[in-house]
This record gives sequence, structure tokens and C-alpha cells, in this order.
Amino acid sequence: MKTISENACFGGVQGVYSHASSATGCDMTFGLFLPAEAQDGPVPVLWFLSGLTCTHENAMTKAGAQAHAADQGIALVFPDTSPRGDRVPDDDTYDLGQGAGFYVNATQDPWAKNFRMRDYIADDLPDALSAFPLDMTRQAITGHSMGGHGALTLAMGLPGRFRSVSAFSPICNPVASDWGRKQFTAYLGADESTWASHDASLLMADRGFDGPLLIDVGTKDQFYDLLRIDTLSTAIAKRRQQGTVRLQPGYDHSYFFVSTFIEDHLDFHAEALWR
Amino acid sequence: MKTISENACFGGVQGVYSHASSATGCDMTFGLFLPAEAQDGPVPVLWFLSGLTCTHENAMTKAGAQAHAADQGIALVFPDTSPRGDRVPDDDTYDLGQGAGFYVNATQDPWAKNFRMRDYIADDLPDALSAFPLDMTRQAITGHSMGGHGALTLAMGLPGRFRSVSAFSPICNPVASDWGRKQFTAYLGADESTWASHDASLLMADRGFDGPLLIDVGTKDQFYDLLRIDTLSTAIAKRRQQGTVRLQPGYDHSYFFVSTFIEDHLDFHAEALWR
Repeated sequence: MKTISENACFGGVQGVYSHASSATGCDMTFGLFLPAEAQDGPVPVLWFLSGLTCTHENAMTKAGAQAHAADQGIALVFPDTSPRGDRVPDDDTYDLGQGAGFYVNATQDPWAKNFRMRDYIADDLPDALSAFPLDMTRQAITGHSMGGHGALTLAMGLPGRFRSVSAFSPICNPVASDWGRKQFTAYLGADESTWASHDASLLMADRGFDGPLLIDVGTKDQFYDLLRIDTLSTAIAKRRQQGTVRLQPGYDHSYFFVSTFIEDHLDFHAEALWR
Repeated sequence: MKTISENACFGGVQGVYSHASSATGCDMTFGLFLPAEAQDGPVPVLWFLSGLTCTHENAMTKAGAQAHAADQGIALVFPDTSPRGDRVPDDDTYDLGQGAGFYVNATQDPWAKNFRMRDYIADDLPDALSAFPLDMTRQAITGHSMGGHGALTLAMGLPGRFRSVSAFSPICNPVASDWGRKQFTAYLGADESTWASHDASLLMADRGFDGPLLIDVGTKDQFYDLLRIDTLSTAIAKRRQQGTVRLQPGYDHSYFFVSTFIEDHLDFHAEALWR
């Protein structure tokens, strides 16, 4: 583990670290905010998974989450969104390859060797985090856009791991969206039966989440139709899933939207994490 | 005036606009946050002047100021730090030319034609802001690093304009610092008598500020010696200037520091602006 930077922040420390990942076959960089309480012992953890084109840095610098994580005594983990480096395959488009891992384990060439972001988030990064004073029995997860998809699919795909899940503007039904079909075809292949475990709406219909759920999306989200909030809302209602879906009037897909409601999400997760 | 973007943010609007400036002889871009209250009439204004290498965007996306400006019903103006464009002179170093205007009116070639940031902030941008519902009888100013220097020198240099002034990690004594002597020589020439009106410590000794002042600086600021907080603190104490200088233990020069204390600064300015 290599320390890239550590900055005092809201009484705690915002760190950036890198480590070798066997899942992705390359060095991975992540951000970790530790509140002041971490000096006295392990603290709960909220994961923030980011969206297309993002690195570990975007949410760490733009979401304004540290202020409220410090209030709640909760750590924040900001993973990268894909493997990185000159030896890692990439694509000329913004929504495939580096910066667009979609939180799946690719099975197709040229992606299969490195693009195993599911295993990275589920196994490798938690192993690396054992170096820090984190209470891994108290974890929650959130994310934005592609990261909202990641948060929802990981929360439902790893029962018992996360106490609560939330998302900002999540991609809710990738198997039926241009934000999903292209990437799943590339990473997972043409057999759509392998896609279902990476679709929040299908997972919601199939098994749901054993805990509270909160989703925020802006009514003026410029990508609204790609997100398929309708499909996930339907699945939540049909399942009678404990949860809240909020359509926020006038807001778009940006971090100005995320930062506006991040305090609500920290409050929501804190209630589950400190229960 | 051209609208570049407008995003809903904390119940208000974070806009980015560009306009032709006669002071700088080029198009200038600025950010403006209007709280919800601006729909009902003019609101007070807090200026945020940014530091070296920054554009209008850094503080707008990283300082977390909008949350608290929304709470206080105050607008935020985020100007750029220099003229921009292919036809504007530049320098290979990060601390001269584009991104490093130092809030002065250059008198020396090749800078004199465009690098008139003092006039831009004092005259041109206020003219452009008349298009928005702002109460220009209620203005305050803050800034970070080079922008802290700008805030302090403009507040003292334009008596009666600003009701309160604050700064994060300001360059306090540029005539005696490597962050200042190089730039003032280039922009203003070798005659140091022309420099004094752009030095916060000299202005403080000479005239002070007719209102409250707040300065925050981190004890682990990696540029601490360049800032010359000591010189300004001495001038404040000798003048018996109404004000507070806080040395924050462990914090550095970054936006993680700025964001940690931005709420205090909004509260401080709100008290002066709503008085």
C-alpha cells in the first residue's frame, strides 16, 4: 500500500492510496476519508461508487460528503471505476473501457484479464482496507449513475454485506438501456442470461434488499431515459421493498445535484450503521 | 452575456456565464450561484477569488460553499483568475500569466494589454452582474491563497465596497515573498513603490479595513512561509483592526482545508451582509 496524499479535512483525514490488485491485475487508487473518531477505534464505512468517466477523485472533491461523514463519525471509501494504465485495454468512447468498468467481472476478450471490478470492490479493496481502523461489520453503500448501478447490484448481490443502500441517478435497468447493453455485450458476451445478476431492476424483482433503500433522481436529469427509474420503481413497488424513491424537481445529473442531497444520504446511512 | 450552463443546486441555481470584458480585452467566464431567494428579489453577494492555476470552476465545485450560501440566502460569484485565450500572453511557469493574474492592473509588456484583473473585478464584472438579481449594496469578499491576497487588497483598496472580508491561506505580503516579487516585477515593473497598493500587510498598516475580517490558515500549509501570515498578523495587531486570524492545526493549503471551514466564513459574512 502506497500513500499518495493525506489532507486534514473536517477534523479527520482525506487520504489517497494505491495498492496492487489481483482482481484487476494492475495498481488501483482509492480515496478514504477517516473521521476524527477513527483515532479511537474502528468506525463504520460508507462506500461511494462513482459514475462513467470518473476516477476515485470526482466524488471525493465534489460531492461534499466529508462534512456530513465527519458529523456522523463514518468513514468514506471512494474506489476508482475501472482498472487503469497503459497495459490495460481501453476504448475510444467514454462509456467503455477505462473509466467505465460497470462493476462487473468481464468474461470476454480483451477485457477479461483486467476488468474485474466486481471482485475488486467485493474482495480486493476490502482486503486492502484492513490496514485502516474500519468496522467492516458496519458497511453501507451508495453511488452515482453507473456507481448507483454498482451500489444497488452489489448490495443485492452480497446479502448481509451492507446494512443500507442508496443511489443518486442510478442506472437501474442496464439490460434494457444504451447504458448497459453495449457494455454488457462487450464485457459479458451476447448471452443475456449472464447479465441478469448485474441489473438492479431484475435483482429487485428476484430477491430485493434486506434493509432500507433510498434513491434520488432529478426530474431534469439529462440522461433520465437511460436510467430507467420507472422499471426499478415498479420492481420496488411490486416487491413491497422497504425504501424511498425521490424525484427531485429541477435537478439534473451533475454533482451539483449529488452535493445538494448528500447530507440526506449520510443521515440515512448513519441511522442504519449506528443501529 | 452567454449562458454556458445552469444547474439546480441546493434549491437555487449554479450558473456559468461568459461575457466580453474591456478590462482584459477578452471573453471572461465566471460562476454565479443564486439561492432560491433570488427569485423574489435581489440578494446579497459574496465574492470568492481563487488562487494560482484556478479558473472560475475550482472553488465552485470543490469548496462546498453553495450549501451554506443557500442556508444564508446569499449569492456567490466565482471569477476567473486571469484573462484567457490563445491571443492572451502566457508563461511556461504556473505562477505567471494565465491562471496567475494576481488581481493587479499590469503596466508592463507583454502583460499590460490583457492582465487588468483589478479593473475586471472592481468594474467590469460588477457591470455584467447587473443582469442578475443581486443587491450590490450588500457585498462581501473572500478568497483562497492568491485569491485571499485579492480579497484583502480589494477590500482595503475599495473602501465602502465590501461589508466584510475573509481569506483562506492568503498571500499576505507579496512584496516580500517569492509569491509576489516575481509577478509584481513582471506585471508592475521594477519600481517597487507601485507595488504597495497590492500588498495586504502594507495596506493593513496604512489604512486597514472598515469592517470585520476573518483569516484561516493551516499550520501544515505547505506554502506557509510564502504566505507571510506573520507580517499581516503583526499589522492587524498594531492597527487594532477588528478581526480574527485562526491557525488551524494540521490543515494544509488544499480545498479539503477550505471546505472544512467554508461554513464559518459564510456565517461570518452573513452576519455582516444581513445587518
